[in-house]
Amino acid sequence: MPKTLQEFPRQRPDTPLLDRIDSPAVLRTLNESELDTLADELRQYMLYTVGRTGGHFGAGLGVVELTIALHYVYDTPEDRLLWDVGHQAYPHKILTGRRERMASLRQKGGLAAFPRRSESEYDTFGVGHSSTSISAALGMALAHRLQGNDRRTVAVIGDGALTAGMAFEALNHAPEVKADMLVVLNDNDMSISRNVGGLNNYLTKILSSRTYASMREGSKKILSRIPGAWEIARRTEEHAKGMLVPGTLFEELGWNYIGPIDGHDLPTLVATLRKMRDLKGPQFLHIFTKKGKGFAPAEADPIGYHAIGKLEPESQSPQAAKQPSGPKYSAVFGQWLCDMAAKDERLIGITPAMKEGSDLVAFSERFPERYFDVAIAEQHAVTLAAGLACEGAKPVVAIYSTFLQRAYDQLIHDVAVQDLDVLFAIDRAGLVGEDGPTHAGSFDISYLRCIPGMLVMTPSNGHELRRMLSTGYQHRGPAAVRYPRGNGPLLAADDSLEPLPIGKAVIRRQGSGVALLVFGVQLAEALQVADRLDATVVDMRFVKPLDQDLVRQLAASHALLVTIEENAIMGGAGSAVSEFLASEAIVKPLLHLGLPDHYVEHAKPADMLAECGLDAAGIEAAVCRRLALLEANSTQVV
Amino acid sequence: MPKTLQEFPRQRPDTPLLDRIDSPAVLRTLNESELDTLADELRQYMLYTVGRTGGHFGAGLGVVELTIALHYVYDTPEDRLLWDVGHQAYPHKILTGRRERMASLRQKGGLAAFPRRSESEYDTFGVGHSSTSISAALGMALAHRLQGNDRRTVAVIGDGALTAGMAFEALNHAPEVKADMLVVLNDNDMSISRNVGGLNNYLTKILSSRTYASMREGSKKILSRIPGAWEIARRTEEHAKGMLVPGTLFEELGWNYIGPIDGHDLPTLVATLRKMRDLKGPQFLHIFTKKGKGFAPAEADPIGYHAIGKLEPESQSPQAAKQPSGPKYSAVFGQWLCDMAAKDERLIGITPAMKEGSDLVAFSERFPERYFDVAIAEQHAVTLAAGLACEGAKPVVAIYSTFLQRAYDQLIHDVAVQDLDVLFAIDRAGLVGEDGPTHAGSFDISYLRCIPGMLVMTPSNGHELRRMLSTGYQHRGPAAVRYPRGNGPLLAADDSLEPLPIGKAVIRRQGSGVALLVFGVQLAEALQVADRLDATVVDMRFVKPLDQDLVRQLAASHALLVTIEENAIMGGAGSAVSEFLASEAIVKPLLHLGLPDHYVEHAKPADMLAECGLDAAGIEAAVCRRLALLEANSTQVV
Repeated sequence: MPKTLQEFPRQRPDTPLLDRIDSPAVLRTLNESELDTLADELRQYMLYTVGRTGGHFGAGLGVVELTIALHYVYDTPEDRLLWDVGHQAYPHKILTGRRERMASLRQKGGLAAFPRRSESEYDTFGVGHSSTSISAALGMALAHRLQGNDRRTVAVIGDGALTAGMAFEALNHAPEVKADMLVVLNDNDMSISRNVGGLNNYLTKILSSRTYASMREGSKKILSRIPGAWEIARRTEEHAKGMLVPGTLFEELGWNYIGPIDGHDLPTLVATLRKMRDLKGPQFLHIFTKKGKGFAPAEADPIGYHAIGKLEPESQSPQAAKQPSGPKYSAVFGQWLCDMAAKDERLIGITPAMKEGSDLVAFSERFPERYFDVAIAEQHAVTLAAGLACEGAKPVVAIYSTFLQRAYDQLIHDVAVQDLDVLFAIDRAGLVGEDGPTHAGSFDISYLRCIPGMLVMTPSNGHELRRMLSTGYQHRGPAAVRYPRGNGPLLAADDSLEPLPIGKAVIRRQGSGVALLVFGVQLAEALQVADRLDATVVDMRFVKPLDQDLVRQLAASHALLVTIEENAIMGGAGSAVSEFLASEAIVKPLLHLGLPDHYVEHAKPADMLAECGLDAAGIEAAVCRRLALLEANSTQVV
Repeated sequence: MPKTLQEFPRQRPDTPLLDRIDSPAVLRTLNESELDTLADELRQYMLYTVGRTGGHFGAGLGVVELTIALHYVYDTPEDRLLWDVGHQAYPHKILTGRRERMASLRQKGGLAAFPRRSESEYDTFGVGHSSTSISAALGMALAHRLQGNDRRTVAVIGDGALTAGMAFEALNHAPEVKADMLVVLNDNDMSISRNVGGLNNYLTKILSSRTYASMREGSKKILSRIPGAWEIARRTEEHAKGMLVPGTLFEELGWNYIGPIDGHDLPTLVATLRKMRDLKGPQFLHIFTKKGKGFAPAEADPIGYHAIGKLEPESQSPQAAKQPSGPKYSAVFGQWLCDMAAKDERLIGITPAMKEGSDLVAFSERFPERYFDVAIAEQHAVTLAAGLACEGAKPVVAIYSTFLQRAYDQLIHDVAVQDLDVLFAIDRAGLVGEDGPTHAGSFDISYLRCIPGMLVMTPSNGHELRRMLSTGYQHRGPAAVRYPRGNGPLLAADDSLEPLPIGKAVIRRQGSGVALLVFGVQLAEALQVADRLDATVVDMRFVKPLDQDLVRQLAASHALLVTIEENAIMGGAGSAVSEFLASEAIVKPLLHLGLPDHYVEHAKPADMLAECGLDAAGIEAAVCRRLALLEANSTQVV
């Protein structure tokens, strides 16, 4: 096994057994004794291919044996196998007929980073966000029962994903309906960040006390020989079971808990799954694995090696290359958070398990008492912030646009309706590139803008982001700043914490004829276009409240208003402009540029923007087409 | 205690003790021996006042003793007391200075049906949706710790609310941060409908086995005398505790569980709360109560008596008067569901604990195998539907508009991105009357419309509702029909299951000059207005896909287009029209009528609509104003 990134196999490794596995049906013809060899080859091949394409691989390395065992024991695709989150699905993709296409992973037209129904019949449920697999598997199991067929259904979920409320909702429901299904808890004590919470402590205790399981049979015998103790044990039924076997929590909810077992021990996995396969009712198998198993650097630093960039062939010392050069928007946020926290001790930072992604690492180290990682629990994160705000604290919820969808109701009811002082730092707004549509933040302007009392801001660069964070923070009431993935121009070294005037846009270029109203980071592209068209360019800054005075002036002084945003056109910032004009009875040609009404497939971010017409060329072409059309129309009318 | 509704106190009962309690501070001056009398008086007064105003009272009757005990033991409002959901907060309102204002409950300008921060310093957290209290209380407790004060924080949550995932998320987080707080689980085996799920079974088992608690001390002594058993018990620590006391599930998560105790036993309540008040770390008190306690009909039928209408003085036999005459929209849905289920055995009906509210009672009785009440678990409800749809079943999720906010991410990711065949029957869309802004469905058009691939329909009456349900059901892909609370004109006896042509609006009245484009039940009002203005009236039917051809024609043939909807104007159906016009470079006067950009306070539904200008008079006035303005503008320009 390679010990450093330099030892990633750069040449395709020799994998004679794996090369034969064109489908799980072939896998099932192997002797059990061959499975360990297959696991070795699969791990080698995965390292080789992820080294070429980049992607998530720590999780995949951890489930090599589980993937083999599941496809070996279950009759996939007839039996349904669901991978929660999907970071861990690369071995599954390799074994299910996609081995030779792994080189296309995360590239335009290539394999998706996650399971996808349209990609393979083996991908039974598309995922992106965590913690959905038990609900979906339960739905499938119930459908099978109603249809009278005997397909089996297996959901594989990590311990990190289990903290999300919806996983609990499904755990609560399945025993009620006596569903025949298996949940495999893949316990590696790790979501993307380290896990937190009572459940995690509980699982850790199970693992640390797993000698109890082997004690069980012996203990029963001892107790049965002691009249008093046996009587208590008999009368307390499941509590007695709780004493003697781990997994009480799941058993209390009505699951048949088995485990914990070593998830890298193929013979035990295969034997256990074979036994459980034909049990009726909800079954729960607890396995423990090591994220990054078989690749020493990833075993040692599973967070850093959650995903890697593509290894550049020319590089002599490839890194866990996550980002290009220059300041990332998330880094601007992370720095601002520390600066504001140093100045205002009321500031609280909250993340739902995205310490690294949202760049809260420095904050968590400098201000540990004011840092709360709530685990994968977006709903709780937002209502926790509401509770804090009730008492005069000033919470900042750092969250990705797409994950905020999980806490939409809490944002409305618990924060906005009560006009509480919570700042949402919304990262990954707009298109996100290779992770594809499930991770894109395409809707936040639409779903936030309709909420009364929300302040919604769209920075055009890192400098503006910093000022808007200060603005939202100083503003008394709910506020949101939405900023994209990746890097942006940071106009100047800047340590100011001064807020902006609320609801005021800025004219960045005075032109005539056409006014480009930009909500966000397309400002740079708009300025390029404007030079060629002599257009006015406005950095709108605020989606809500809109700078109504300026829009009124622009409408009065320009022939065409063009709104530009990296959000769905439907209900987006452009519609805020058109609604305002309609409310004022202003009739004016309008062109809305933004994300189209379909999901934009994974590709390089720049390609995705071009596809949506949000690069300079696309903006210019759209404006020119519209000007020509308006001229033609006016000629016709007059 | 009264035994029937006729025995509701129609005259204000004599409550000399209660009359003295103008604040909890006064309550705390009482002798403990007086508290039982106070409980009797409080119950009598609550029956009297809810009889006059209508409202929720089963839950309140169940927590009379708990409310007294909490305010007696804790130093409210300095200590923070949070009521989950808030159905149960009437006794709290009466004891916290609002006794004489109870007559104004749920009326315009009067007391809200739920706790509200702006109403009283004793209402520490506004609620409407369930399961938020633990998160909010945890936020408060953490704020207190950071501020170095010793306020205490108590959340009261029902067993029904505990099934929602966000409650679990908070239960998981609090032990991690060792928060000093108390959760009181008010266990009455009842949400609004009956509870379901493994957790409920677990709680039931605790209650049925509560003799164990009294066994505990004795058992310990027995075990300690038996060498082998004691050794096992000692080594298994918390598991041993699990055997001997109930509450293992909460203890496993890290809570100190006490209970179960009788929630109507004031001395025990007071003594227990006094002991727990000063314990550090997360405390969990499990009490059992009877919903409707002290009012025999409500005890016997807690679902039917969840809330009552106002008792009419002239009526000789007042009923649990929930609805006026005529078919309710929810009844139209309930009938359609049965009819379609009889025809298509693939149909599955899903409700998150709203069997009665969404009118699934008949369906649940006729098709029990295809009926799933998932408990208060909206996220799971939607992803469960996605799983069912993957396997060729045809799930119908019956859900209130405001509760669908809880499952927004699941609707996007698990259903829409995968283009799965799920129908959302969205009840309570628009304003809902006395329950106020937390229950209004003001945003669903905005938050659904931006999602690619969604079919979104707005019926103008019961007949249209039925046809749209069939349309969404037959359509292959995600579909939503949003319909209001209350009753609507059902145009004709109708048992058809024929779908409508998708994306086709219908001209209901041909006029000239002004075209009224109606999305929903304001059609009747629009027709009234149109007769006076000779306007064209269109029943738009589809928010998405919009009838683009017709909109284009209307724009070409009318001077003003007016969009009408009972959704926020921001991002609503009107914006769909303006976005389409902009995309076609059509420049046309537009007026958007809909819900304003603020929360509409609770009042009678008709008054709320009038306040928003969505009754006939309001629509007419707005159109006339706009016509005058356009004329003035055009005169100015020319």
